[in-house]
Amino acid sequence: MIIDCHGHYTTAPKALEQFRERQLAEPHRAQKQPIAISDDEIRESLEKAQLRIQRERGTDLTIFSPRAVGMGHHLGNETTSRHWAEHCNDLIHRVCTLYPKNFVGVCQLPQSPGMPPKNSVAELERCVKELGFIGCNLNPDPSGGHWSDPPLTDKWWYPLYEKMVELEVPAMVHVSGSCNPNFHATGAHYINGDTTAFMQFITSDLFKDFPTLKFIIPHGGGAVPYHWGRYRGLAQDMGKPPLKELLLGNVFFDTCVYHLPGIELLLKVIPAQNILFASEIVGAVRGVDPETGHYYDDTRRYIDAVGWLGAAEREKIFSGNVSRVYPRFQNNRRRSP
Amino acid sequence: MIIDCHGHYTTAPKALEQFRERQLAEPHRAQKQPIAISDDEIRESLEKAQLRIQRERGTDLTIFSPRAVGMGHHLGNETTSRHWAEHCNDLIHRVCTLYPKNFVGVCQLPQSPGMPPKNSVAELERCVKELGFIGCNLNPDPSGGHWSDPPLTDKWWYPLYEKMVELEVPAMVHVSGSCNPNFHATGAHYINGDTTAFMQFITSDLFKDFPTLKFIIPHGGGAVPYHWGRYRGLAQDMGKPPLKELLLGNVFFDTCVYHLPGIELLLKVIPAQNILFASEIVGAVRGVDPETGHYYDDTRRYIDAVGWLGAAEREKIFSGNVSRVYPRFQNNRRRSP
Repeated sequence: MIIDCHGHYTTAPKALEQFRERQLAEPHRAQKQPIAISDDEIRESLEKAQLRIQRERGTDLTIFSPRAVGMGHHLGNETTSRHWAEHCNDLIHRVCTLYPKNFVGVCQLPQSPGMPPKNSVAELERCVKELGFIGCNLNPDPSGGHWSDPPLTDKWWYPLYEKMVELEVPAMVHVSGSCNPNFHATGAHYINGDTTAFMQFITSDLFKDFPTLKFIIPHGGGAVPYHWGRYRGLAQDMGKPPLKELLLGNVFFDTCVYHLPGIELLLKVIPAQNILFASEIVGAVRGVDPETGHYYDDTRRYIDAVGWLGAAEREKIFSGNVSRVYPRFQNNRRRSP
Repeated sequence: MIIDCHGHYTTAPKALEQFRERQLAEPHRAQKQPIAISDDEIRESLEKAQLRIQRERGTDLTIFSPRAVGMGHHLGNETTSRHWAEHCNDLIHRVCTLYPKNFVGVCQLPQSPGMPPKNSVAELERCVKELGFIGCNLNPDPSGGHWSDPPLTDKWWYPLYEKMVELEVPAMVHVSGSCNPNFHATGAHYINGDTTAFMQFITSDLFKDFPTLKFIIPHGGGAVPYHWGRYRGLAQDMGKPPLKELLLGNVFFDTCVYHLPGIELLLKVIPAQNILFASEIVGAVRGVDPETGHYYDDTRRYIDAVGWLGAAEREKIFSGNVSRVYPRFQNNRRRSP
């Protein structure tokens, strides 16, 4: 079985974006407006995109969440973010209900710059308990490139972590769009967010306070595996225990690295039990690599090409680690056909 | 010959830091206060550190600039930054005068958040014409982690680029300290700065406007080589030419990557003519890697360990590329014994 832990609903029917445009035009409207999307529209949006690609690439299931760049926590206000998160999450739930074999839900949180993360607890709980979701996406920078909220290791975030631990759900650390002209969203802000979060974890005692808290750092861990020696050395200079001991019980990396040498490096330096297969389709990079003739984001191909990767490691990466990182995954599967 | 293109004077005599403390305590003092440092103090600060390491590791010469984290452009004001840069650069000049075989100078610029880069032109010109320096360090974020100035590709920076082109000096893109609690300086802000600058270059026409402008992206190019497929794919999706054509005539990476798998990746994906040897000693990571028994920052060892790297490529990386990236290097050498 091959599980892709990182997929966003980037192909949602247009009515979703139209709602968002109307909503942002009237950010002080307190009442949630409805969105009309039919099941057929949802089917059509997936059949030609994510489902086709699952079939073509031989992957079985995607852990699926709302479009990351669309979360836009820096836009509107807290009410805007709440209505928007609820709609986006409800839509993911409809996807998972229509295609229970193909998708499992992860939620967007109603974050807003300067608003305490505890305000996201209710929506997380709703998504996990009522919609059967198994995780959340946590934006380490709700300001969209101004990094004005406290680091992920600040007690500011603890009420959310308490709920995550109670519900047994991990968070993928995932920024959204950037309103800072210095940061291209998918080319800089995404990767910087990953790198930044990891270094925050190194310098903190977060996992002493929450020994079972789990984070997935997407996009292959940002810059981290490439600079693994730097991070090992920085931690050592600070008198911290080895990274393995310090955080590899809590921090996991996905495989959204879009060329073979990058994947080889990732598999070489990060233990297989800390790597989760992912492609982030239909995502940041949509073209075909002229050097290989295959899609850049066809990450399964790179992993398959690494001859020295053992069968046990491969199994962990493709599916075995999922139950450990997402404890609710098995329950969710038992409920689905 | 082995040239290390990335060294900072991190071991400067204490009087330098004491000046800085006094200066920041009185940021509105308009007059520049003197610093008293003897030649012997300079010798002592280098003999046990950079010079010892050059000898031990068999490197010949370091392209040397003031301490990067010490630049602190976000501290004080424009006058503070000017006096500080002048002192730091003068001290580098004294180092290069005392040890002309071992060091060549690169300057710190008197940047300050919100102040136009054209205000750094005079100090750049002084350092190049009067002190014999061959390049500068350019901080893409003088705010120290708030990223409040325009991207490096904005016309805001053009007067500085015009002077760089006229003087034939490259810039190493190098942030300084971070006053944003989200960003650890050497573990996040440095690497993010590198990644951010590269993506800015991809999305711009900067090198059409300045075909001979050259940048070194340090720390192995941040996250870039690890995500080379992502960057190639992003550029392709934007309808840009291949990265090689788009910017590899202008952008170079150093080898400050502190483990063998990272160096192997760098050498595998980036053409040798775009890589410059560097260690950044005595720098961010000072310990010995227990997995190898050698210093993390002993990057020569990693390059030497890559058996498949050809002799011609090795020569380019260790020294050959320097004359192309730093056209003033040869002149500087002719003037020195």
